[in-house]
Amino acid sequence: MFVTDTPLRHPVPSLPRGYRLGAVHAGIKRNASREDVTLVVSDRPAAAAGVYTTNLVYAAPVALDRSRTPGRGLRGVVINSGNANACTGSRGLDDARRMAEVAGRELGVAGEAMLVMSTGIIGEFLPMATVEQGIAAAAAVLGDDEQAAVTAARGMMTTDTRPKIAGGGFIADGTACTVFGMAKGAAMIGPKLATMLAVVITDAALEPEDAQRLLAAAAEETFNCVSVDGHMSTNDTVLFLANGAAGGGPLQGAGLEACGRTLHAVCESLAREMADDGEGATHVMRIEVTGAAGRDAARQIARTIADSPLVKTAVHGADPNWGRIVSAAGYSGVALDPARLVLRLNGTLLFQAGAPVSFDAAAVSASIQGNRETLIELAVGDGPGRIRFHSSDLTADYVRLNADYHT
Amino acid sequence: MFVTDTPLRHPVPSLPRGYRLGAVHAGIKRNASREDVTLVVSDRPAAAAGVYTTNLVYAAPVALDRSRTPGRGLRGVVINSGNANACTGSRGLDDARRMAEVAGRELGVAGEAMLVMSTGIIGEFLPMATVEQGIAAAAAVLGDDEQAAVTAARGMMTTDTRPKIAGGGFIADGTACTVFGMAKGAAMIGPKLATMLAVVITDAALEPEDAQRLLAAAAEETFNCVSVDGHMSTNDTVLFLANGAAGGGPLQGAGLEACGRTLHAVCESLAREMADDGEGATHVMRIEVTGAAGRDAARQIARTIADSPLVKTAVHGADPNWGRIVSAAGYSGVALDPARLVLRLNGTLLFQAGAPVSFDAAAVSASIQGNRETLIELAVGDGPGRIRFHSSDLTADYVRLNADYHT
Repeated sequence: MFVTDTPLRHPVPSLPRGYRLGAVHAGIKRNASREDVTLVVSDRPAAAAGVYTTNLVYAAPVALDRSRTPGRGLRGVVINSGNANACTGSRGLDDARRMAEVAGRELGVAGEAMLVMSTGIIGEFLPMATVEQGIAAAAAVLGDDEQAAVTAARGMMTTDTRPKIAGGGFIADGTACTVFGMAKGAAMIGPKLATMLAVVITDAALEPEDAQRLLAAAAEETFNCVSVDGHMSTNDTVLFLANGAAGGGPLQGAGLEACGRTLHAVCESLAREMADDGEGATHVMRIEVTGAAGRDAARQIARTIADSPLVKTAVHGADPNWGRIVSAAGYSGVALDPARLVLRLNGTLLFQAGAPVSFDAAAVSASIQGNRETLIELAVGDGPGRIRFHSSDLTADYVRLNADYHT
Repeated sequence: MFVTDTPLRHPVPSLPRGYRLGAVHAGIKRNASREDVTLVVSDRPAAAAGVYTTNLVYAAPVALDRSRTPGRGLRGVVINSGNANACTGSRGLDDARRMAEVAGRELGVAGEAMLVMSTGIIGEFLPMATVEQGIAAAAAVLGDDEQAAVTAARGMMTTDTRPKIAGGGFIADGTACTVFGMAKGAAMIGPKLATMLAVVITDAALEPEDAQRLLAAAAEETFNCVSVDGHMSTNDTVLFLANGAAGGGPLQGAGLEACGRTLHAVCESLAREMADDGEGATHVMRIEVTGAAGRDAARQIARTIADSPLVKTAVHGADPNWGRIVSAAGYSGVALDPARLVLRLNGTLLFQAGAPVSFDAAAVSASIQGNRETLIELAVGDGPGRIRFHSSDLTADYVRLNADYHT
């Protein structure tokens, strides 16, 4: 078993066939024990899909990747952490292109076949000499074992306390296929469209349009349903590569559906890990809103609850202060009837029919205190709309981490 | 000069003629040194206007006051702190009506002539015996001096560290008129419509419709432009009473305009005080957005910056981390061109033309560190829309106050 100094929450899943990963410390981050340049490489052309931040202030690598996905013939992703290459103008775009070029040169593929991701401080130019040297070094340490997978995931990290990895498999047309994903994100996690960096790879064969459709659907219910602080990043990107190394032609019908289900499970695991590892978090909040008019309405209610500093601090304080939850629903912008709200916290009924109900506050407080996950269930009516949303609590450590991050 | 144990930021302004105020500790709050029942009484019928929370989950007193404003013949306001009378169903509405009845009985006026405000914990029924005894006691201590004004303002407080009072005067048709306002609010301060409790009284004569129009206009640019944590309360209420004790007929034309300007100044002072006294705040952020398509667009951008935990913690850490400000503007939902953004922090240019500019980070950090107010100026284009928005920074003390509030 491979050993790492950062705790892993799950066993490391297998990599799909035909991929190699690697990461090194190049020097973008000051701490020499932190990898900061990562490569994900497919040994053959892959279909690629991407979903991106909807922030109008978006980073250079987002602009570059948008122009290359969905597409076919892609060969990998080059990733740096420690610098977001955002708000860097035309020089930033040149730098992102140059990262793809250098990675292509080191790997013997076209620069246009590479995608790029960056994460870290906004508004500083990339130290390109350091980055280029890092790309060459990463290309020399590529592997397809557990160590390679974990090191690559570490190479994406900024304030994350642990790498985030998930995997799964499915059978399509008699062929066993594997899906592997890795992600980073612990702050500037906002709840609209993809909200962090994630790379998901599979050895299934997919048409680019199918890959894009599956990814968009999965992101909508996973990465789009997580929030740490409601601040939408400039760099949010989820990439999905499908290289077909498992054999067989492009998936269709039931095989495509099976791939979509596995992709969804991998994305959900990564998204939940992000909330769980939210900066300073002592609790992950799982918010289940049901009975809304539609999914978007349910998500809007859940997001408003998830982002309220008063709800977040109440959970941190193990305080069943349900008025904060109900009042957040009330200002979500979604039409609702307060008399029809039914709220449960860790399974205990706290509010219904517009009035308080009697409950054992000490017992509910103890259940919040004693569990990493706090479950908030809010029924708002009898509509079909429902959502599961993950968030983290708000602690003094979040404040400390973010008051001190830059300097 | 009157002495208080809570620091006042400004000299206590004069009360308008024909009003008496008073507050007592009745026992809704545990701390016996904290007043919790307040009366504001006009000695003659007054025109009354109100603006209220847009939260769909609104408290009983909000429902009651909405039905009574705008109106004429009002005689005062009865206020309790320590309990919001929110999410309390039909019993809560009965309790709010009963507060008005009891106040009317003690003052010798009709119960229907009284307005009601409550603030404090959500979801608990009012201890009516305590409240009723408090109303009777408050009616016995009414006064029109500084002490009465400050005690009344103290009686509205929850986690506020000081009473919030503002006043002003104007001449209309040769008659000197006075405006006096008091407010409370340090958390659950969200940026849509009126966002806390405030009572503003004047001895000018106003038609109810004019009072409503002036109040709505003032609230739009003052209370509607302040945020502590973005969580919209269930109880937000601003009331405006005009009793005509200064003499003369209802204001029109230039006199009405003068009244509106004074009302605006009083509301702006109270709103700024709320951000300044935000729970745990070490800085008040003044955000000036200019060049937007319209006022609503400017406010939406300012509010998104104001509510970002990453911007708030950067200000707390005296960190000129402008990427957080620019990226918040980018996800505000308002269409904008990143290349046209021009950002200044405490007067220093940090970002323009889509790329970083060189600046003295240590000097900007020192200027944040050394001043209670941090000025964020963001020009987004050349449109006519502009707004001034006040907010507070986010500190570990905010987390502590709100993780521990309930229990």
